[in-house]
Amino acid sequence: MDITENIPFSLGAQLESVAGSLQDSYFAHRRIHHISTRLMPSRDEIYEITQQLFALIYPGFFGRLDLAVENIDSHLRDLLENLSKGLYLQIYNSLSYKSQNDDEMLKQRASQVTKNFFKALPEIRELLEGDVLAGFKGDPAAQDTDVVIFSYPATIAIGTYRLAHALWNMQVPLLPRVMTEQAHSLTGIDIHPGAGIGRNFFIDHGTGVVIGETTVIGDNCKLYQGVTLGAVSFPHNDEGQIIRGNKRHPTLEDDVIVYSNTSILGDVTIGKGATIGGNIFLTRSIPPGCTVTAKQAELHYRNRHHSLDRGVVTDYQI
Amino acid sequence: MDITENIPFSLGAQLESVAGSLQDSYFAHRRIHHISTRLMPSRDEIYEITQQLFALIYPGFFGRLDLAVENIDSHLRDLLENLSKGLYLQIYNSLSYKSQNDDEMLKQRASQVTKNFFKALPEIRELLEGDVLAGFKGDPAAQDTDVVIFSYPATIAIGTYRLAHALWNMQVPLLPRVMTEQAHSLTGIDIHPGAGIGRNFFIDHGTGVVIGETTVIGDNCKLYQGVTLGAVSFPHNDEGQIIRGNKRHPTLEDDVIVYSNTSILGDVTIGKGATIGGNIFLTRSIPPGCTVTAKQAELHYRNRHHSLDRGVVTDYQI
Amino acid sequence: MDITENIPFSLGAQLESVAGSLQDSYFAHRRIHHISTRLMPSRDEIYEITQQLFALIYPGFFGRLDLAVENIDSHLRDLLENLSKGLYLQIYNSLSYKSQNDDEMLKQRASQVTKNFFKALPEIRELLEGDVLAGFKGDPAAQDTDVVIFSYPATIAIGTYRLAHALWNMQVPLLPRVMTEQAHSLTGIDIHPGAGIGRNFFIDHGTGVVIGETTVIGDNCKLYQGVTLGAVSFPHNDEGQIIRGNKRHPTLEDDVIVYSNTSILGDVTIGKGATIGGNIFLTRSIPPGCTVTAKQAELHYRNRHHSLDRGVVTDYQI
Repeated sequence: MDITENIPFSLGAQLESVAGSLQDSYFAHRRIHHISTRLMPSRDEIYEITQQLFALIYPGFFGRLDLAVENIDSHLRDLLENLSKGLYLQIYNSLSYKSQNDDEMLKQRASQVTKNFFKALPEIRELLEGDVLAGFKGDPAAQDTDVVIFSYPATIAIGTYRLAHALWNMQVPLLPRVMTEQAHSLTGIDIHPGAGIGRNFFIDHGTGVVIGETTVIGDNCKLYQGVTLGAVSFPHNDEGQIIRGNKRHPTLEDDVIVYSNTSILGDVTIGKGATIGGNIFLTRSIPPGCTVTAKQAELHYRNRHHSLDRGVVTDYQI
Repeated sequence: MDITENIPFSLGAQLESVAGSLQDSYFAHRRIHHISTRLMPSRDEIYEITQQLFALIYPGFFGRLDLAVENIDSHLRDLLENLSKGLYLQIYNSLSYKSQNDDEMLKQRASQVTKNFFKALPEIRELLEGDVLAGFKGDPAAQDTDVVIFSYPATIAIGTYRLAHALWNMQVPLLPRVMTEQAHSLTGIDIHPGAGIGRNFFIDHGTGVVIGETTVIGDNCKLYQGVTLGAVSFPHNDEGQIIRGNKRHPTLEDDVIVYSNTSILGDVTIGKGATIGGNIFLTRSIPPGCTVTAKQAELHYRNRHHSLDRGVVTDYQI
Repeated sequence: MDITENIPFSLGAQLESVAGSLQDSYFAHRRIHHISTRLMPSRDEIYEITQQLFALIYPGFFGRLDLAVENIDSHLRDLLENLSKGLYLQIYNSLSYKSQNDDEMLKQRASQVTKNFFKALPEIRELLEGDVLAGFKGDPAAQDTDVVIFSYPATIAIGTYRLAHALWNMQVPLLPRVMTEQAHSLTGIDIHPGAGIGRNFFIDHGTGVVIGETTVIGDNCKLYQGVTLGAVSFPHNDEGQIIRGNKRHPTLEDDVIVYSNTSILGDVTIGKGATIGGNIFLTRSIPPGCTVTAKQAELHYRNRHHSLDRGVVTDYQI
């Protein structure tokens, strides 16, 4: 049954003019349509593929739950067959949708990338186990690693980043960015797939975290919500156009902690073992082992009841 | 097959008392139910409609992907027929669900608003192309406009805002707010549909951005993550109730940039071409062409290894 | 039709080695799989259950919309039958998936918890009506309570928290945390189910809010976007392991307001009626009735046009 059939409305005679003016608009503003025989990748399919990759990486936690020693082998083969075809198609579309290259060559390249990606999965799993363990060790509210896998946004954001980063390194356009942006939508954590991140990485809470394209992060680092690892300004070329691709985001060496709502901007280096306090705005390098805190803003305290009841405002500082 | 049929649980005899106490609760707390012959609009349908509007505006990027010169005309008509009925129904329900007005009048009004909205779409597309281009020009990590359309939260948040703002201007209640709130949920960017925003608008990263109801933004403005354009306090009337509707948010003139995590609060004006740095708390107007930065908080550096190894705390500032 | 059947790709001979290396990986990295006869709870089912609970609590707003006096009774019974079975299963799986306890005992406990939870719903509804009303009273952009229920992230975040908190108090593992984390994903508001929150609670905008596990909040409190009620540091035991469970987050007494992007850290007490301004970093207790503001950072203003056009930089402060 068409749910819309009983709705007492039709564009009627205006359908013609609305459709016509939209088609005119498609021709006038070409940047925001893609009407072409070469398909764009599909955001919905990419989302589905990431879900299936999580089922592959965290069996029993994501996707099908009733996995036992008896059925794991057949489950794995079915999942791999289906998933690899879907991923191949999105890689192919990402490579081909605006390419002038020979189609056979694009297919071979998509095929090769897909195979290499699946070969890399065990290594990615090893990294992810380290990340989950870092989450458990780093948060007193975590009762076990299960709750970290099951309900921590870091698991979604970092897991998706590590998968997307592998595809980024294989020079697949568009697809890795769509993957990390879907994780950003789910978690509020925005990690560019081009960033380089070491082992045992944890982000607690995470909403508002931004990790820019050329950021480099060592092993055993931890970030809290609202941390920006960003750029401070962009150089422009002689025509006034922005220069793309140069290193413009921070480097965090191993064992660095950055507390909540701190921004570190520019191509600076935070040395091994440094701790950066919360609510700090930092645009310079920090030596290894250094703890950075900000002199807190002077606070003013006013006793509202005094001022309301007796007409006296008590300003004092403690 | 009912998936629940094998679950060995039933409320049994307690079903009666639980259902009864909930019904009592419905009568006792009437503000949070809507049991009525006049239906509320549907959040799920509104979400679906916004998705279809994106398919209409960005053909080949959102919705059906295999669009070619041969099928675009029939695709467009099918989409328009279906979508216009769905939108009409949500507009009608938004207008009628608590109205005492004559039903025929409400239907005519819903019909008129729906038609006017579709007539406005080409103009909205023109604005959105400008926004996408602003995103490409403003971010060195963007390789082309496709990646901006496909994976930037600004595309969802600003696109949804421009559609919702058109309905807001036609005095449709509830519906525009639901639309922008769904975009907020997807992107972390909270733009009130009542705000007025000029051409070529871009928000980078975006998580935590809040743009209040009476904000006015000129052409070519750019915001970063965590920026609040908010109110500083609310006037109350003699009965102590909040006064609604007055201008209480900032005005940004053309060509203004506001960097990450800055709050601009109150009905102040940021003049044409001004640049407001990151992590600033601003409650006053700024003249045109002015660059505002904050004196950074004094930072304290302590070398952890020194203090741990030799019992000496080295406090120094660089 | 299998959508993947026409895709010209297969892992082919490599399926064997990929499946094999993944199985090796499952054995090598056991923390991130759950291949076991005892099932984990299901994130998808928990999401569906929370949706149905919202339909039960806000009838006519969420879930089925066409509710009238004539059908509310049968609707309620159907919903309760279905929902209670689904919730029972997730509670049972949460209790049993890694338990060594007798299965009969676990079933009885799951059954008792499920029944107690449904008995608590009318009381939760009463609290939620207070929260909705607080939202309406506290935001000048709210036209009525309907728009608060329908489109405010606070409704999702606080509503889910109150449901999850009831299950947390009944010592159900995992499930409550998954529920609040799904609300975090939808709203950017991260409330730990262990926190204690009084009546008439409102969070405006909300993206970036973090409310930690041992936070206590009194009646009639209001928070804005970006507020962290967090811990300042974690004590470790003699083996260097983090100590879990102690009170490490703030207490807010009744009638406290905390403005946007402020962090209050540690087990401090904000006294009754206190108001904490925006963008403040606070690690100490505040007496009742006190208004706290920060001395704003000194701002620097530079007129860009002057410096560009005449080679003169005008630094001034206003």
